[in-house]
This record gives sequence, structure tokens and C-alpha cells, in this order.
Amino acid sequence: AHIVVLPGDGIGPEVASAGVAVLRAVAERFGHAFTFTEHAIGGDAIDRFGDPLPPQTRDALLACDAILLGAVGGPKWSDPAAKVRPEQGLLAMRKLLGVFANVRPLKLHPRTAALSPLKPDRTAGVDLVFIRELTGGIYFGAKTRSETDATDECRYSVEEVERVVRHAFELARTRRRKVTSVDKANVLETSRLWRSVATRVAADYPDVALEHQLVDSMAMHLLTHPADYDVIVTENMFGDILTDEASVLAGSLGLSPSASIGGPGAGVYEPIHGSAPDIAGQSIANPLGTILSAAMLLRHSLGLADEAATVEAAVDHVLEHATLTRDLGGTATTHAVTRAVLDAIQ
Amino acid sequence: AHIVVLPGDGIGPEVASAGVAVLRAVAERFGHAFTFTEHAIGGDAIDRFGDPLPPQTRDALLACDAILLGAVGGPKWSDPAAKVRPEQGLLAMRKLLGVFANVRPLKLHPRTAALSPLKPDRTAGVDLVFIRELTGGIYFGAKTRSETDATDECRYSVEEVERVVRHAFELARTRRRKVTSVDKANVLETSRLWRSVATRVAADYPDVALEHQLVDSMAMHLLTHPADYDVIVTENMFGDILTDEASVLAGSLGLSPSASIGGPGAGVYEPIHGSAPDIAGQSIANPLGTILSAAMLLRHSLGLADEAATVEAAVDHVLEHATLTRDLGGTATTHAVTRAVLDAIQ
Ligand SMILES: CC(C)[C@H](C(=O)O)[C@@H](O)C(=O)O
Ligand SMILES: CC(C)[C@H](C(=O)O)[C@@H](O)C(=O)O
Repeated sequence: AHIVVLPGDGIGPEVASAGVAVLRAVAERFGHAFTFTEHAIGGDAIDRFGDPLPPQTRDALLACDAILLGAVGGPKWSDPAAKVRPEQGLLAMRKLLGVFANVRPLKLHPRTAALSPLKPDRTAGVDLVFIRELTGGIYFGAKTRSETDATDECRYSVEEVERVVRHAFELARTRRRKVTSVDKANVLETSRLWRSVATRVAADYPDVALEHQLVDSMAMHLLTHPADYDVIVTENMFGDILTDEASVLAGSLGLSPSASIGGPGAGVYEPIHGSAPDIAGQSIANPLGTILSAAMLLRHSLGLADEAATVEAAVDHVLEHATLTRDLGGTATTHAVTRAVLDAIQ
Repeated sequence: AHIVVLPGDGIGPEVASAGVAVLRAVAERFGHAFTFTEHAIGGDAIDRFGDPLPPQTRDALLACDAILLGAVGGPKWSDPAAKVRPEQGLLAMRKLLGVFANVRPLKLHPRTAALSPLKPDRTAGVDLVFIRELTGGIYFGAKTRSETDATDECRYSVEEVERVVRHAFELARTRRRKVTSVDKANVLETSRLWRSVATRVAADYPDVALEHQLVDSMAMHLLTHPADYDVIVTENMFGDILTDEASVLAGSLGLSPSASIGGPGAGVYEPIHGSAPDIAGQSIANPLGTILSAAMLLRHSLGLADEAATVEAAVDHVLEHATLTRDLGGTATTHAVTRAVLDAIQ
């Protein structure tokens, strides 16, 4: 299998190399042949090629089996008036690959639950997965700007909604058989379309329960009874906000993986944390979010479920027995935590 | 002063009448003449007049000094395919009155902080005010729907942004002199407009600090360090989500008031909780959110600051000494809690 590695900006290169080390260890232990090539994206690509998603990166993305991404962006490139911004590389990549389903599992490990801002009685039993629509909506709609006005159009087609909602129902079948579809159907036309498609698709899954939730009340319920949810599916902008809100429940952003999948080609796997430029280059970044993203890569893009489970078990072992990085209250370096995972894999 | 009362749906009539009782007590104690007239809005207005904001209500809204609203909506009218929906009454009222600034203070009382899903070390010292833009953005933009597609347009003009941002800066001057402006400037054109206007307006307030925050990271920071914020200003849709998320910090939705102001005429004052049809008619609804909204009405629309402070002190007294409603862990009825506030006012 051929894997493209996009180290990106800030701590991106450090965590991406931890992910690669783990994938190499898996290849060795299970006798697979993985090849890796690194390509530029984001601020790094702007600096080197003047383009946040240069042609050689595009070509590589379209020709590989899976993509492991570190992180993108940073204050160096974040002037909103700048002509090219690192985030454009991310958005262009999502569109290019057609990865319409951004999957973010959220599960609490006892050791990190203690770091959650929520009281333990609220986070007990939380085990949910967000499916965020990733290639449509207001992110990709027409935009205008004049001296006096600006506009952004949010557009959804039946087809765009249907495929991501189906994805959620399929996933729910492998879990607790409950889908919560989040919209703002009391105000938005796109949300009324969303709700009607979700309701129609649900008829094909009589074994899965569907509930509709308004985005504002979802923002509350995520905090008041997060354990009630199984699979939550929503549109791009709402998903951006709600997945970040939910990630706080876990106690550390450093632990949460994500997968962007559903396109005809490769999927993109990345930790949900950002590029954290303030701690870049110090080897204190938490590699576990990227390592768990590598596990999702094994499962979803390479079909290697046992290998994925081995990585996840190794991370569980490390969370229980090893010294962790600073964000988890420890003193270990990125390398030491990665080493501990590698040891647990062999 | 003439006050229009809009009882609305569900528990709306119960809490609205608590608010009116408190305003009457204030009028008596301070020697003011307040008159009250009730009008229909929302589901109640649909049932009686086939219109969620009937002409007689519109006329009354335009001719009064202030508006006290209970709550609007309920499952009875919530079929998204229905031609008229209760929420349309709310949205039409906001536009009619031009109340572009929705103000939601968030402060924790020790007795309710215990009910917050957040750990006490996170909520300690929280004292913030949200200013949500209320008459623009994707709520009021052009909408289309076909068999295959739907669209919603988000539009902001410089003028719409400027007036609400100024409102936030003016308020910050009376507080801790910090404004956090929330947008998604790395993706949306309307957000880049928003950010540039906020930056320009800030130059007129050299004594107030401005920070920009992306909406997704705001959704996290509200939970990880809510005490860092003073005045938070944002656009309509983001404000809908973030204010509901923030309201959970308080432990009970039943306590939080809101004001919708800034128009040429009357302001609208309402509790942030919904119509809670499941507990309607049982006299167990918490009236304190509406009573604190009545205090905001006294201060903002009638210029009666001492009277407002008297109501707020009475609520503080009740929170410390009286039996509370079920949502706050007590057993008192709506009437008993209202009575306790009235006693504390006299
Ligand atoms: C960087 C930004 C464009 C991106 C988004 O909003 O999608 C990020 O917040 C994310 O969630 O992946
Ligand atoms: C009922 C709905 C239209 C309304 C809104 O979204 O503005 C409500 O959620 C609110 O926050 O006042």
C-alpha cells in the first residue's frame, strides 16, 4: 500500500512522523509492504511553492491508497486579507478527493476523563461518533464581497445529503443503532431539505432509530447528556462547531483522531488538534491523536481491522501504564510516548 | 409606560404572568404607572388567527415601550413542512422591531453552579455577556428550494456589522473592557467582512481590548476557560449555537434572561428557555429567567436602573433563601417562587 504523508505546519511534522513510525512497525509485525512519500500542504507549501496545495501534492493524493496528515496553519499565514491561506490547501484537498464524510469518534479513557472540564457523572459512558459532511454547504458555496456587503451561499443537493446520511446509518448498524441528525430546520431551507432526506433514508434502515435535533439544542445536549448519543450526523458548518465542542469532553484534544472518507480514492487521516505553533519543535506534542488516526487509516482505507485493533490496544496500554505528554499531565516527550506505543506493538 | 405581553406557547403564559406580577410590584413600590396588554404570537397565534404574528400584534409591538415574551413553539406546530410555523412569528417580530442586538448575560450563582455539568474550577469567576446579531445573516437571506437542491444565503452589510460591534464595545466600557469577536474568517467571506469591521471599530475604543476568535475554537474555549471572557459578539447563526452552549454552564436554563434591543422602538425581553410543552400547565416552570428578563426590561427599555437592581437583588435573595423549582433541585411551584420574589421586593 502506498501512503502519502502530509506533515504540514507547526507540530504537524512531529506527530506525522510518530504516525509513520507506528505504521512501519505494523507493516513489520504483520508482514505488509507500506511505502511512504512526503508532500507539502498548507503554510509549508505556501512558503516553498507559493500554493497551499501544489500540483505535485495533488498528483500524489490522487495516486495513493491513504493519506496521513499532521496539521495545517499558524499565525505566520493567518492574515485574513492574505491571498493564499494554509486552510485553502485543506479545503481544496477535501474537494479534490471527494471525502464527504468526516468521522470523529469520541470515547473517554479513564485516565483522560479526569482532565475533562465536565463532571465525571456527565461523561460516564460517552461513546459516540460524529459524521460531519465535509465537501458541501457554506464552505464551498458562492461568495461575494463588495465595499458594503459580503455573502456566502449555503447549498446542499439531495444527493450530497443522502450519501452522508447513509454513511451514518451504515455505521450505526455496527454500533448501537441510533442516528441523531442535526439541522436548523426551523430556519434554514437547506436544513429542511436535510431533514426530509434523512427521514426518507431512515426508511431503508428500520433497525436503526433516527432522531432529529436542532443545532442549538444539540450544543446544549452534548454537555448535559452526551452519553445518550451514538452516531451524530450533520452538515459542514454545524459539524465544525459541534465536533470541536464535543472534543473538549475528552479532556485532551491531543487524543482524538479523525478520518475523512467516502470519496472514490484515498481517505485523509489526521488528529483533530491544530498545528499548535507555540509548542512546535520542542518534542512535547502528544502523538496519540495521530497514532489513533493511523489506526483508522489501517481500518478504513487499507481494510486491516486486526492491525488497527493492535494499534488501538497499544495506545490503551500506553494510556494505562506509560508516562504521557504534558497535555495529559505527564512529562514524556513525543518520542518517548511514540516509543512506548512501538514497544507495545512488537 | 406601556408594556406588551406576549405569553406565547407551552409554559410561556405561566412565566410571563410571573414577570407581569413582578413588574406590577415594582410599579407599586416605586410609584410608576405601567399598563399591560396581552397579544398573541407563535403557535397560539396560529391557532387563533392562522398567523404567527397577526396584524393586531404587529400594531401593538410598534406602539409600546417594551415587550415581555414568554416562549414560542412546540411539537404541535413543528412539522417542518407546515406552511406557517411559530418561529416565523419570532423572526418577523425581530425584523419588524429592528432589534439587532440579542444580549445574554451569563453569571453563576453559587446555588446553581452546583448544577452545572462543568467542574467548579472551570465555572469559577464566569461573568460574561453575549451580544448576538439578531436581524441579519443566514436567518434572513434569500432561500431557494427545488426537487434536487436547497440554498440559504448568508449576507452581512458593513452597517449591520458595525452597529452590533459598536454595541459590544459600548457595553465592554461599562464592564472589564474586553471584546471577543467570533467569526469563521478562514472560510467565510461574511466573516472576513465582520473581522475587518470589528478591527476598524476597535480603533474608536482604545481603552477596550479586542480579540478575534474562530467559532470552532470558541466552542471549545467556552468550556475550557469561560472565565476569560467579558463581552462576546458574533453573527446570528453562530450566536444561536454558542449562546445555547454557554447557557448550559449556568446549570439551569431556567435562570437566564435575554434582551433583544437596538431598534428604534421597543425591546423584547424573554427567558432563554423554550416553551417546554412537557411541563406546561403544571405550575412547575421556573419563573426566574422571565423575572430577570423583566429586570433587563426595566433597565434597558425604561431606563429604571434602581428598579432593575431591586428585582435582581430580590432574585438573589430567593436563590439564597427560598425553596426553588424542580429544575433547580427544589419542590416549589411557579407561584411560590414568584411570591417569594414579590415578598422580597416589597
Ligand atoms: C482549518 C479549517 C478550515 C477547518 C474547517 O473549518 O473545516 C478546521 O477547523 C477543521 O475542522 O478541519
Ligand atoms: C426558535 C428559533 C428560530 C430561535 C433562533 O434560532 O433564533 C431560537 O433558537 C432563539 O435562539 O431565539
